[in-house]
Amino acid sequence: MNSATGFLLAAKRCEIHALEQLALTAGLVGGIGRLVHGLQKERGASNIYLASGGTRFAAQRERIIAESAADEAEVRARFARLDTDAGHLAGGARLFSRIAWVLHGLDALAGLRAGIAARTLEAARATEAFSELIGGLLAVVFEAADTASDPAVTRALVALFNFMQGKELAGQERATGAAAFGAGCAEADLQQRLLHLIEAQERCFQVFEGFAERAELLLWRAAQGHAAVAELERLRRVLCTAPAGGMVDANLSDAWFDCCTRRLDEMRGIEDALAVGLQQLCERKIAEAQADLRDHALRVDALRGAPAPLAVFFERAAEADGAAGVLAADGLGPQLGRSVLDMLQAQARRLQSMSDELNAVRGALNERKLIERAKGLLMARRGMTEDQAYKLLRQTAMNQNRRLVEVAEATLALADFLPAGH
Amino acid sequence: MNSATGFLLAAKRCEIHALEQLALTAGLVGGIGRLVHGLQKERGASNIYLASGGTRFAAQRERIIAESAADEAEVRARFARLDTDAGHLAGGARLFSRIAWVLHGLDALAGLRAGIAARTLEAARATEAFSELIGGLLAVVFEAADTASDPAVTRALVALFNFMQGKELAGQERATGAAAFGAGCAEADLQQRLLHLIEAQERCFQVFEGFAERAELLLWRAAQGHAAVAELERLRRVLCTAPAGGMVDANLSDAWFDCCTRRLDEMRGIEDALAVGLQQLCERKIAEAQADLRDHALRVDALRGAPAPLAVFFERAAEADGAAGVLAADGLGPQLGRSVLDMLQAQARRLQSMSDELNAVRGALNERKLIERAKGLLMARRGMTEDQAYKLLRQTAMNQNRRLVEVAEATLALADFLPAGH
Repeated sequence: MNSATGFLLAAKRCEIHALEQLALTAGLVGGIGRLVHGLQKERGASNIYLASGGTRFAAQRERIIAESAADEAEVRARFARLDTDAGHLAGGARLFSRIAWVLHGLDALAGLRAGIAARTLEAARATEAFSELIGGLLAVVFEAADTASDPAVTRALVALFNFMQGKELAGQERATGAAAFGAGCAEADLQQRLLHLIEAQERCFQVFEGFAERAELLLWRAAQGHAAVAELERLRRVLCTAPAGGMVDANLSDAWFDCCTRRLDEMRGIEDALAVGLQQLCERKIAEAQADLRDHALRVDALRGAPAPLAVFFERAAEADGAAGVLAADGLGPQLGRSVLDMLQAQARRLQSMSDELNAVRGALNERKLIERAKGLLMARRGMTEDQAYKLLRQTAMNQNRRLVEVAEATLALADFLPAGH
Repeated sequence: MNSATGFLLAAKRCEIHALEQLALTAGLVGGIGRLVHGLQKERGASNIYLASGGTRFAAQRERIIAESAADEAEVRARFARLDTDAGHLAGGARLFSRIAWVLHGLDALAGLRAGIAARTLEAARATEAFSELIGGLLAVVFEAADTASDPAVTRALVALFNFMQGKELAGQERATGAAAFGAGCAEADLQQRLLHLIEAQERCFQVFEGFAERAELLLWRAAQGHAAVAELERLRRVLCTAPAGGMVDANLSDAWFDCCTRRLDEMRGIEDALAVGLQQLCERKIAEAQADLRDHALRVDALRGAPAPLAVFFERAAEADGAAGVLAADGLGPQLGRSVLDMLQAQARRLQSMSDELNAVRGALNERKLIERAKGLLMARRGMTEDQAYKLLRQTAMNQNRRLVEVAEATLALADFLPAGH
């Protein structure tokens, strides 16, 4: 079937195939959310355990590790179900490369846990290790969002990714605070880091709000009114307003860990709703596309052998003139032939508007990438902390009255001029 | 093979698969270039034939039609060779949809030719029909450039696409001038259109120059010094400086057609060099990627069973610190394990830099898309000609001291406020 109608149907099948891949990815993302949640909890517990010299949270830590074994197995199984042999997954190279890193990280997890149990690692170092692994898992979600070809699904993935990222920053906040309460002391750089994590969370949730559906927004806003949030704000104040290097009440460890955990659990519920919504969206889109394909196939069958009318060459010009009537007067083609043309034009218009919408959503995603990478560059080349790098970019943008993303682009363009090391 | 190294190799296979698709596309683009060249020649000859009331170019036209039959058959065969069944071509939906339209157009070509032979179509209408078909063929090349995932190949495709587009505008110039000389009269709107086509050509060749390789640039610049170009400038002057509605020497038809044709033939030679270069680039990239895959596979075999070291969690942080020595002191993992990590990191870095480069090249492509669509919107909603639409956008950009693409974006964003019809 090498005819025009053959390619019309083939285009539809490509859409369906891409949607089926997205549905697989949506399932994967759900699994990653659960595993990340367990790792976040383990990171927090490990922090208190290490910071308290092994006197607190030993049992909780063991229980949390046991609980996340099933989630790790599920993520591994979902990775295995991806079709790695055929090599034709859209954007597969980057996705598979991210997954390879995550699997390598999961393989090293046993060693990390042994080091924590034996207390041969510092709390900060353990936090760094968990955060790297979680960052790798989130990068898999990011690649999925980056390669999705349906704009509605991409929107949902961008909302979900930013929510997961915000939740991860909330998790890092829990670990950072846990280390402080565990040690009974709030150092100045820890306070700075805490403020940075709070601000960065808020930025993620703003992007999430920009892309989420109404129902999901309502869930999120309702969660903001809960008691755990008020308690968290009180404990944040305790940590951030303590004199630098000053003592904090180590007995607040449990209260801090509990209220952060209640908040993270609540986020996990919303995240789960987002993942389920994503899955349903994919299934709905697949059903619609399959119905379209059946309809198109029936119409193509009915039109078999119909001649191609000259109208094909003038339809676009006629549309632009708003003069649809001209063609019928020309008698350029039978109604039958026009139907193929109608289908072709409807498909082209739909694909065009999907592509436009997709470009707009990806724009938001790319901006995030650029800002993250400019930050990373400043950290590596100028020896800044993440927070300092972000503040420098933001201040430059304000001074020059430019958008943050423009400053990030300019920074990356000047990469070669920034000295290596510091 | 669901291990980290399995996914590392799978990522490489994805790259190879994408490059193989690109090589197929490169062949298709070469075939499209030849067919477009024939259709452009036929359009010019048909114009003189119709404008002269059938007294000129009857035989040339028949010969040109006969010559392009083989090129049409080749393009159809190359379309047929695309794997439409599997539905997993990256960006396949849009590519196939474009191809469906082209095939429908090719099917209608016999009817168009019969209408021209019987002189039941006006010259302007025939030009419009050929230009639509050629536009459809170029849209296939554009989709190929838009979905390519290798930045070097994308650059080559963007250079080639803009060259083909510039050549097509030169072909429209030939047809427009041929109609004027054929009728022995240069109307004011025809003169305007000619000036627009000359200006638009130059824009395309500027983009081409920005993306072409040095050797290709030299070919193009050498062509600018040829005698046909000087002769063309003389005849352009004759057409554009004739008093509006004034007579032009109909005997210059042949000279116009010949010198435009010599120029287009020369362009065709350069275009062919670009297409061959593209094909060779794809083959070189495939060979490199396959060598990489073999090398990776050997190293992975040698490392089988090596433990995953904790270094996986700290490598990125160490890089940022510029403190590579710290890890060895920690004794966090054997050299063997680090090798997998090295491969993973090298792959991630390479894919990241490819993705960055690709985004930059696509930026140029997207700008072109946005400007074209803003123009189309103004034509449809405000009843402007292409030239008027372009000038309005450019004037607005100058007045507001903004980039043309920003004005195009703003225009599209305001689409809902522009009245339909006029």
